Amino acid sequence: MSKKKRRKIHKHGLPPGTLIYTGDREHAPAAIQSVWFTPEQYISDLEYRPDWIQQKETGVIWYDIRSLTDTALVERVGTDFSLHPLALEDILNTQQRPKLEEYENSLFFILHNFRLEVETLDLLSEQIAVFLGPNFVISFQEDADDTLSPVRVRAENMLGRMRKRGADYLCYAMLDTVIDNYFSVLEDIESQLTDIENTILTEGAQEELKARIFALKRVINHFRHRILPLRDATHKLYRTDADLVEENTRPFLRDLADHVTQILERVDSSRELLTSVEALYQAEVSNRLNNVMRLLTIISTIFIPLSFIAGLYGMNFVNMPELHWKYGYFIVLGVMAAASLAMLHYFHKKDWI
Amino acid sequence: MSKKKRRKIHKHGLPPGTLIYTGDREHAPAAIQSVWFTPEQYISDLEYRPDWIQQKETGVIWYDIRSLTDTALVERVGTDFSLHPLALEDILNTQQRPKLEEYENSLFFILHNFRLEVETLDLLSEQIAVFLGPNFVISFQEDADDTLSPVRVRAENMLGRMRKRGADYLCYAMLDTVIDNYFSVLEDIESQLTDIENTILTEGAQEELKARIFALKRVINHFRHRILPLRDATHKLYRTDADLVEENTRPFLRDLADHVTQILERVDSSRELLTSVEALYQAEVSNRLNNVMRLLTIISTIFIPLSFIAGLYGMNFVNMPELHWKYGYFIVLGVMAAASLAMLHYFHKKDWI
Amino acid sequence: MSKKKRRKIHKHGLPPGTLIYTGDREHAPAAIQSVWFTPEQYISDLEYRPDWIQQKETGVIWYDIRSLTDTALVERVGTDFSLHPLALEDILNTQQRPKLEEYENSLFFILHNFRLEVETLDLLSEQIAVFLGPNFVISFQEDADDTLSPVRVRAENMLGRMRKRGADYLCYAMLDTVIDNYFSVLEDIESQLTDIENTILTEGAQEELKARIFALKRVINHFRHRILPLRDATHKLYRTDADLVEENTRPFLRDLADHVTQILERVDSSRELLTSVEALYQAEVSNRLNNVMRLLTIISTIFIPLSFIAGLYGMNFVNMPELHWKYGYFIVLGVMAAASLAMLHYFHKKDWI
Amino acid sequence: MSKKKRRKIHKHGLPPGTLIYTGDREHAPAAIQSVWFTPEQYISDLEYRPDWIQQKETGVIWYDIRSLTDTALVERVGTDFSLHPLALEDILNTQQRPKLEEYENSLFFILHNFRLEVETLDLLSEQIAVFLGPNFVISFQEDADDTLSPVRVRAENMLGRMRKRGADYLCYAMLDTVIDNYFSVLEDIESQLTDIENTILTEGAQEELKARIFALKRVINHFRHRILPLRDATHKLYRTDADLVEENTRPFLRDLADHVTQILERVDSSRELLTSVEALYQAEVSNRLNNVMRLLTIISTIFIPLSFIAGLYGMNFVNMPELHWKYGYFIVLGVMAAASLAMLHYFHKKDWI
Amino acid sequence: MSKKKRRKIHKHGLPPGTLIYTGDREHAPAAIQSVWFTPEQYISDLEYRPDWIQQKETGVIWYDIRSLTDTALVERVGTDFSLHPLALEDILNTQQRPKLEEYENSLFFILHNFRLEVETLDLLSEQIAVFLGPNFVISFQEDADDTLSPVRVRAENMLGRMRKRGADYLCYAMLDTVIDNYFSVLEDIESQLTDIENTILTEGAQEELKARIFALKRVINHFRHRILPLRDATHKLYRTDADLVEENTRPFLRDLADHVTQILERVDSSRELLTSVEALYQAEVSNRLNNVMRLLTIISTIFIPLSFIAGLYGMNFVNMPELHWKYGYFIVLGVMAAASLAMLHYFHKKDWI
Repeated sequence: MSKKKRRKIHKHGLPPGTLIYTGDREHAPAAIQSVWFTPEQYISDLEYRPDWIQQKETGVIWYDIRSLTDTALVERVGTDFSLHPLALEDILNTQQRPKLEEYENSLFFILHNFRLEVETLDLLSEQIAVFLGPNFVISFQEDADDTLSPVRVRAENMLGRMRKRGADYLCYAMLDTVIDNYFSVLEDIESQLTDIENTILTEGAQEELKARIFALKRVINHFRHRILPLRDATHKLYRTDADLVEENTRPFLRDLADHVTQILERVDSSRELLTSVEALYQAEVSNRLNNVMRLLTIISTIFIPLSFIAGLYGMNFVNMPELHWKYGYFIVLGVMAAASLAMLHYFHKKDWI
Repeated sequence: MSKKKRRKIHKHGLPPGTLIYTGDREHAPAAIQSVWFTPEQYISDLEYRPDWIQQKETGVIWYDIRSLTDTALVERVGTDFSLHPLALEDILNTQQRPKLEEYENSLFFILHNFRLEVETLDLLSEQIAVFLGPNFVISFQEDADDTLSPVRVRAENMLGRMRKRGADYLCYAMLDTVIDNYFSVLEDIESQLTDIENTILTEGAQEELKARIFALKRVINHFRHRILPLRDATHKLYRTDADLVEENTRPFLRDLADHVTQILERVDSSRELLTSVEALYQAEVSNRLNNVMRLLTIISTIFIPLSFIAGLYGMNFVNMPELHWKYGYFIVLGVMAAASLAMLHYFHKKDWI
Repeated sequence: MSKKKRRKIHKHGLPPGTLIYTGDREHAPAAIQSVWFTPEQYISDLEYRPDWIQQKETGVIWYDIRSLTDTALVERVGTDFSLHPLALEDILNTQQRPKLEEYENSLFFILHNFRLEVETLDLLSEQIAVFLGPNFVISFQEDADDTLSPVRVRAENMLGRMRKRGADYLCYAMLDTVIDNYFSVLEDIESQLTDIENTILTEGAQEELKARIFALKRVINHFRHRILPLRDATHKLYRTDADLVEENTRPFLRDLADHVTQILERVDSSRELLTSVEALYQAEVSNRLNNVMRLLTIISTIFIPLSFIAGLYGMNFVNMPELHWKYGYFIVLGVMAAASLAMLHYFHKKDWI
Repeated sequence: MSKKKRRKIHKHGLPPGTLIYTGDREHAPAAIQSVWFTPEQYISDLEYRPDWIQQKETGVIWYDIRSLTDTALVERVGTDFSLHPLALEDILNTQQRPKLEEYENSLFFILHNFRLEVETLDLLSEQIAVFLGPNFVISFQEDADDTLSPVRVRAENMLGRMRKRGADYLCYAMLDTVIDNYFSVLEDIESQLTDIENTILTEGAQEELKARIFALKRVINHFRHRILPLRDATHKLYRTDADLVEENTRPFLRDLADHVTQILERVDSSRELLTSVEALYQAEVSNRLNNVMRLLTIISTIFIPLSFIAGLYGMNFVNMPELHWKYGYFIVLGVMAAASLAMLHYFHKKDWI
Repeated sequence: MSKKKRRKIHKHGLPPGTLIYTGDREHAPAAIQSVWFTPEQYISDLEYRPDWIQQKETGVIWYDIRSLTDTALVERVGTDFSLHPLALEDILNTQQRPKLEEYENSLFFILHNFRLEVETLDLLSEQIAVFLGPNFVISFQEDADDTLSPVRVRAENMLGRMRKRGADYLCYAMLDTVIDNYFSVLEDIESQLTDIENTILTEGAQEELKARIFALKRVINHFRHRILPLRDATHKLYRTDADLVEENTRPFLRDLADHVTQILERVDSSRELLTSVEALYQAEVSNRLNNVMRLLTIISTIFIPLSFIAGLYGMNFVNMPELHWKYGYFIVLGVMAAASLAMLHYFHKKDWI
């Protein structure tokens, strides 16, 4: 997944619609997989089979492109299915915001798969683009590994209701799979928060927590900014009046939109909690400073006057009667002890000790 | 009620509609209670009586499932009443956000019962799901104890207008009972706030208040986040055009929505008050630091110069005329006393003492 | 007026529509006053005269209930005029949010009268509920003292246009009277703010200001939270299409809604000012700490090196040539004086003195 | 212009529509000027000429009332042109929020002229009320000096397109003149901000800046609160469907609304900048404290150990061999110098010097 | 580009529609370039060729004015194409907010080109105004250098689809070119942020970062304020029902609006990151102060008691038995060493060393 997302280069000054892959995963070769299924049959081919569109009269066809390094392949698929050039450009420009776009005869959905690397607190993202046509779905995954494999497994093994439904349900299943992953990210974030909070409450304001809080704040903000537009997109999908979406798929799309809303609410909740945790950290830090100051004050306040008395009788005046008293030294020691005790009592009363 | 709600595990990667209970109360066995009443009659059975639906021609039937550990039972009820699989999934997935969903021939409402454990400042939650059908209500309570018992008591004892009204009023009564509990939580929160505020104002910024303020902040934020979607849900319920809701029940639903709005306003008010209390705490802490600093300064400022003078006459120079003056020592003592008084006067003028 | 408003007990677990007075003013006996006027006549009776509704064919009838301790009276009025049980409940439950509710043939308005107790910075509130019917108005005042007396005086003495207009104008006059009082509260708040600000700027950050700022913050937030819903309510009243409101009363209702908006804007302005004042206070406090620190530093920085020199020549080494110099002592004194002057000069240059 | 705006007395408890001037400029006598112009003619009279309304069949008539001390005059104008009593009340109650009100056959616009007194950072305001009728405009200026004189000059001297257009354009020209003044206020605010920022960056956190930042914050907030409702009012004016506004005046009104939006955006920008400047000031202050602390630490850390050594050899023990060493004193001096250098080196490494 | 944008003088008190250039680039002479192209032909003339409008029956005509110093030229173009006087005024008044205005038969778009001067963190802006007519486009660039040259190059060299489309696509291409530049500004801002963050984390809170953070904050706020209205403008353009925009250009305009939204989201993200970075900086600064304080405390706490002991035995009492013990001095030294070690151990346990 993309780690250095903040340093991605935007292609400036090119005519709109120019196809250039702007991600940072150039090494994995692009792969394509064609799948066709009906309630009864399931055929999978690791070749690109555009001919199926004409051949198959029923069922759902799914083309899944993994890794986007082969621009020519993307363009060829685009030409075969008359996809809009701007949509193709969006597929390759992998830092798009999530969105739903409606074209004549097709819906185009962009969203991202996220993973939180817990060690470094890096939020890795992978762009997933999905075209929904009348009886086919085309998916473009930025990474070579297969984020959508749970969908394929369910289709192959007849789990759930996938095989009995149309292309719209397949598309829904893909989005649901990706969005379901967000809950893992959320849980990672929340467990980080709980962990930081516990560390502060039990071990105090450790120095290293500062960088961790900062990193987590960045993760949460980044995550939130990337999901925020998804809420609109999923609600738009749920309310679309395109014929491509069947009526009995809508409750599932409503559920999807609901999940995104729920995720956002939990992200906001985490944000607030992080703010509280940060305040707690600050309070802990300043509390520690206070303790340091208090100790300094107690030590100084006790010894400075005592030292003065000692200094007093260290003066070399010829005529200092006390110096010649027999018990002068012991009287002074007594006075010093009494003063110390009085001050300790005062501090105790003031609740400083 | 659920205490470790933040560590609940979401079931990833399963096909949508799979029924798994995700809560943390596995031990209590599930129980079901069937109730049927007309203005004249009230029958209660601790068995599941789906046959009543066919048998009873008038009156209202209420199935109340307590504890969700028996997934098969939930599924059976779902099949008997053709409930949507996603709704069944929501019932078992007990960290849902509050919502109203309209299906053909039924309304589905999810909300939560809350209780604040005052000792630990933990906000416990229990999910309550309610289906409203033409002449029946099905309620699913996450816990084994009976949150809805006041409703049953009123129905049994003919209190209020429950027996004279339809299923929609019964459903309203359930929601009202749960939402009424929120006022207790609010009062607990508000009394905690008042208590913290008084402690600060009378006893100063006690160390232990910090954790308490932090915990209360979390409770308030959590509470708010869980009620916020409820406002929309109750307003949607009040404005629904489903035939299931009779016209003379609407004023009650409007009142319900009004209560939720009022609760949210009081929560917001508490939030602001907490922010003020926190600022007060911080001010108190920094005030204390100031006092410590001031004392240190006074002590140091008085004694450092005096010690210097003492040190001066502790020097061993052969030729130091003052040392040989007869009243040199007493003159120095006098000078020291005068300097101290002058400085005390200065501090007094500066309002530091 | 209600002082302990934050500790009022909500009646839990009772069937909706149960009439219990939840305020804290149990002592004052309830009173009712019936008024009937036409452009020509004005009759006032300290009895409850429900018979007037049938007798009087023209003019406006006004029933004014003061103090809500007599629940039976409220219920009787409710029955006579077929008021909705939820509205009756709202009248007695005196911590309602302001609202306008439209029933068939009547409008129901709830709002509060406020008074700021300047000494203690307590915001006292009294709930006023008003029913507007075709030719009558019923008002419920929580307190025994008569907040609406200016309205009655104007009706009795034919001031303004009250006698020439219908019940809707009477209702407007009541709301206007209550809302007009808000300006006093605002002025009290604003004068408190100015006073605090002046105190800070002239006398510095007095200790006692902290509690006052805190109390004022609470008053402003509380005031704002109680008026916020009133804005919606007055705008709804202005735009209502109920026949009860005549067309030529609308400009007055628009003016009313405008007043509430203006009050809210001034409250927001006060809130921002208070935030500024608080920041000013904090700056003043930390400025004072800085001054203390600076003095400490100056004293320490000057005397610590001097004391060291004194200590140096207080050492008892046998071989310390300087001690035997004739002017050794005076040279050291001179060095000390020079060092002090140099440091004072440095501090002066650094702008610390 | 009104300086003590925050202490203005609201007239409580009077019937709505009572005419009392609530401003603070009682001394200037009220003046009225009547102007009539057609593309060919321009007549101005310092008398009130209500007769022109009947006499003049073409052209535009403009009555301009300056200073509002003569309530009777305002009332007379109100009666002559059947202005609504609430509008008349608003004219005299000079702390109104800006607003557009539509009456049958007339539009009523209230806004304010502002001036920033740069010395004292006081924001002076003057209320301007404008009535637009079919072929006449009536303007009420709170002050005796003539804010609208640029409009009159342009009408008299045939500058711009004023003489060729109707009353609506005259009304627009007045609003435009007043709103144009806001840019001056903005520029004064922005130059104050730049000035403060430069002072902080070049001369550090001067004490006097604190009060200035505070005053500027108040000015910006006050300015913003007074213009905010103007945005709605101007947009409402631009979109009004009243016949009084001709179609070819609309682009000008759109431009006016655009100006107000632009002003608000710049005010918001100034607000954010002020927040940044304040943070900069705080950082500068705490930076200074840090420097003071650092110096104190360096001095103390160097001299406290040295003094200890000196004290050590000032002890009077009989048996202290070092005291009798020939070069004991010089060895100690050497050790002291070495320790000082070591510590200075340490501080340098830590970047404290 | 304009550097001193905050000190630009607004022209007060002039009749609306007066043409005065308010920018600060008076030196560059104005230039005009006329371009005409069809799918087959491309003609460019460095003269103003208004005659082409009549002559050319197909294709697109583009007049490009660079530098606005020649007011007469702007006015002449305005007259030739009947542009609205307020639009002309907006062209010359180069601090306009971005906007789309629809006139009969033409669309008028204003936006700005930005460049971040990385050295000084100054955000330079240049106003670009574009008129779209039925078959022509007129562009006004504030600067003499050619921001729109990529568009011209593409038209001349037949890159992309420009030559095959109408005037609306040409206009789109211009806006796209300008908005594309925003991504560079964004990347500069983001790389500044990363740089500052890294500096803090590796080298600590350098003094100079303060001014840089402040400057960057100003840049981000300024940038955001200038783009915010652009979002509305581009969305309005995308949804306009003007005949000037062909149906197949809309997906491109949607893409444009999408870009602006994406830029704003990234700006907001940067803003939040900057806030975090600032908090990190503050934490680092206060952390450093804490370290200083801790060192001071350790040094003081260790040596103050030791010095006291030394002072004690420096007293000159005649009767001080310890002084005469043979190993008194060494015992005292031992006690001092032991005390130091005990304190060091305590500090170590407290995690201060």
